[in-house]
Amino acid sequence: MIDPAAAPFPPPFSFTLLATSGPARRGRMTTHRGDIETPAFMPVGTVGTVKAMYPEEVRATGADILLGNTYHLMLRPGAERVAALGGLHTFMDWPRPILTDSGGFQVMSLAKLRKLTEKGVTFRSHLDGTAYELTPERSIEIQTLLDSDIIMQLDECIALPAERGEMERAMELSLRWADRSKAAFGVQPQRALFGIVQGGDDAALRARSAAGLQSIGFDGYSIGGLAVGEPQETMFRVLAELTPLLPADKPRYLMGVGKPDDILGGIARGIDMFDCVHPTRAGRHGHAYTRFGVINLKNARHKDDPRPLDEASPNPNCRRFSRAYLHHLVRTEEMLGAMILSQVNLAYYQELVAGARQAIADDGFAAYAERIKAGWAGGDLPPNQGA
Amino acid sequence: MIDPAAAPFPPPFSFTLLATSGPARRGRMTTHRGDIETPAFMPVGTVGTVKAMYPEEVRATGADILLGNTYHLMLRPGAERVAALGGLHTFMDWPRPILTDSGGFQVMSLAKLRKLTEKGVTFRSHLDGTAYELTPERSIEIQTLLDSDIIMQLDECIALPAERGEMERAMELSLRWADRSKAAFGVQPQRALFGIVQGGDDAALRARSAAGLQSIGFDGYSIGGLAVGEPQETMFRVLAELTPLLPADKPRYLMGVGKPDDILGGIARGIDMFDCVHPTRAGRHGHAYTRFGVINLKNARHKDDPRPLDEASPNPNCRRFSRAYLHHLVRTEEMLGAMILSQVNLAYYQELVAGARQAIADDGFAAYAERIKAGWAGGDLPPNQGA
Repeated sequence: MIDPAAAPFPPPFSFTLLATSGPARRGRMTTHRGDIETPAFMPVGTVGTVKAMYPEEVRATGADILLGNTYHLMLRPGAERVAALGGLHTFMDWPRPILTDSGGFQVMSLAKLRKLTEKGVTFRSHLDGTAYELTPERSIEIQTLLDSDIIMQLDECIALPAERGEMERAMELSLRWADRSKAAFGVQPQRALFGIVQGGDDAALRARSAAGLQSIGFDGYSIGGLAVGEPQETMFRVLAELTPLLPADKPRYLMGVGKPDDILGGIARGIDMFDCVHPTRAGRHGHAYTRFGVINLKNARHKDDPRPLDEASPNPNCRRFSRAYLHHLVRTEEMLGAMILSQVNLAYYQELVAGARQAIADDGFAAYAERIKAGWAGGDLPPNQGA
Repeated sequence: MIDPAAAPFPPPFSFTLLATSGPARRGRMTTHRGDIETPAFMPVGTVGTVKAMYPEEVRATGADILLGNTYHLMLRPGAERVAALGGLHTFMDWPRPILTDSGGFQVMSLAKLRKLTEKGVTFRSHLDGTAYELTPERSIEIQTLLDSDIIMQLDECIALPAERGEMERAMELSLRWADRSKAAFGVQPQRALFGIVQGGDDAALRARSAAGLQSIGFDGYSIGGLAVGEPQETMFRVLAELTPLLPADKPRYLMGVGKPDDILGGIARGIDMFDCVHPTRAGRHGHAYTRFGVINLKNARHKDDPRPLDEASPNPNCRRFSRAYLHHLVRTEEMLGAMILSQVNLAYYQELVAGARQAIADDGFAAYAERIKAGWAGGDLPPNQGA
């Protein structure tokens, strides 16, 4: 990790492409709060905490960067309050990089009485009905108050399937907001500003969005408007069409994705960054991700099983607790069950992307992905014979 | 810690009185799973987990021993299942000593359709209505299946205030059950069996109970039927009358007690062991125990306060997170809030008894207790001026 005290000026944000394996990319982002090895999975610290985990536990899984949700944080505790308390890193005791979203996605999915105009969006909090306005400029201001390292432009993300006219309208609005976001962001070399490609599942719209964003110029390019209801094959097709149109020397971030299989597919199509609440949410619901695929610990097959989740895992939590104990914790709704399984899932996600990074460096990503998927297809251990 | 592999036979349970300071006692219990320094506070691992904490976190607070609840464990996952999975220590990955209660107290407070007879108690699970029978013999059997290190006799615990006749009846029944418990326990030098003194708030009944139990002979003496609705002064009076009647060379355990103030008062009256769900439950409800007393983090006075709970605490969690962050976690009902505050409170309880042990060794317990209570009386930090 870089020691800011050792350098006269903090290093600016940068991205270096280190290796490729087909379209798959191995890279590194440098920030004044530490490096981010890519492909990277970013755990989601929704409201200033990765649910059910201490920040050092999250780091120990291998995470270089967290995601914070602007919508949640602007409501509680409020961006100005976080700034007065020293910024989000200090607030949650996570000294490493943080990426924030623009807030727009959750305004669309959670807030009440939304009204979208050219200027921005007004809405009422889903918690207490308080009225807010979010504009491209205010979103940048909030993310700066949070002291985010990687900032997203405000965009309009629509669900799929959608009419072409609607996809085009939202994409064009997002481009105009991208322009205003860039102006509001100004010159801040220690932070990165990412533009967001929209355009639904339409290749021509996606291409226009990508070109428009590049003419504005961003430090990285996010891909929004996917994993919003479309089949995985549609998402993969859009990615395969889009990533060749993005600059090779900037990071590419597929927003809100996904399950392990989505992540391998995204990496295979040239994506560098991912985030998703899925691993921690699945953990809270009793699901564990391992090299055997997903294991539902609520299932009664585990109730007498003394075997750990995966005795060959590098993660101690996968080796030290029996499936019977995990089943018991899930059935009794004990917090420790959510704590362990959130950790297990984040650790598995980090193991997955760390393996991908190594495989790309060795120019063997396709074989790596096939080997991992074969493990999942093989399924969980057979039922315990002793039980 | 004792290495069982190094000894040809595991050492038997024993208790050594090391020092006194007035009636306050400094001692040590030895078990084949490790020593227990007394006065000891035992965190409650209700259903096979100290809520919201990993076992190593509990150990790191200074806990030498946990308490497991027989009632909860016999319902889920079931004593025979725990035994088949290697016992409670293996099940929950806590290799150190465990004390189990008899199940009787929670049968009385939680179960449905209870029927008490000379033989024992029948009841239906509060979870699913399944019928169970708990007798003195079955309670010993269950606690042995759990592989408990310190086993409690089954007793009948009644609430206070109560009629003298009712207190006498329950006390006499508990004595007969003590006799049967001793017979059922047999000879097991690696485990301890504790009798339970009953008799409500009546000194004569308590004395008869204490004498009756000693004529049977136990490895330790629990004091039940307190902290069941009576004022603290009543509890302290009963303790002051009772502990001189108990043998000096056996440990004394005040069951289900209590708040920090109760614990200092119990130590002052010759108690060696305590347990209570209060510190973890209070933590889940947003209350933090520190040398300033109890702090309600739900209170809006903390929302802009950058100060930690207690910057002079030896516990990192008391120093690293701002009150504003803890307030935020409590208000947003994030699990991390419960995790941190459970740890903070257990660590404070352990700090309290560790200080008492040192003070007794130095023959200065009374002054120690006054100093601690003066700290609580002084109250929390004044409101943050910067806020």
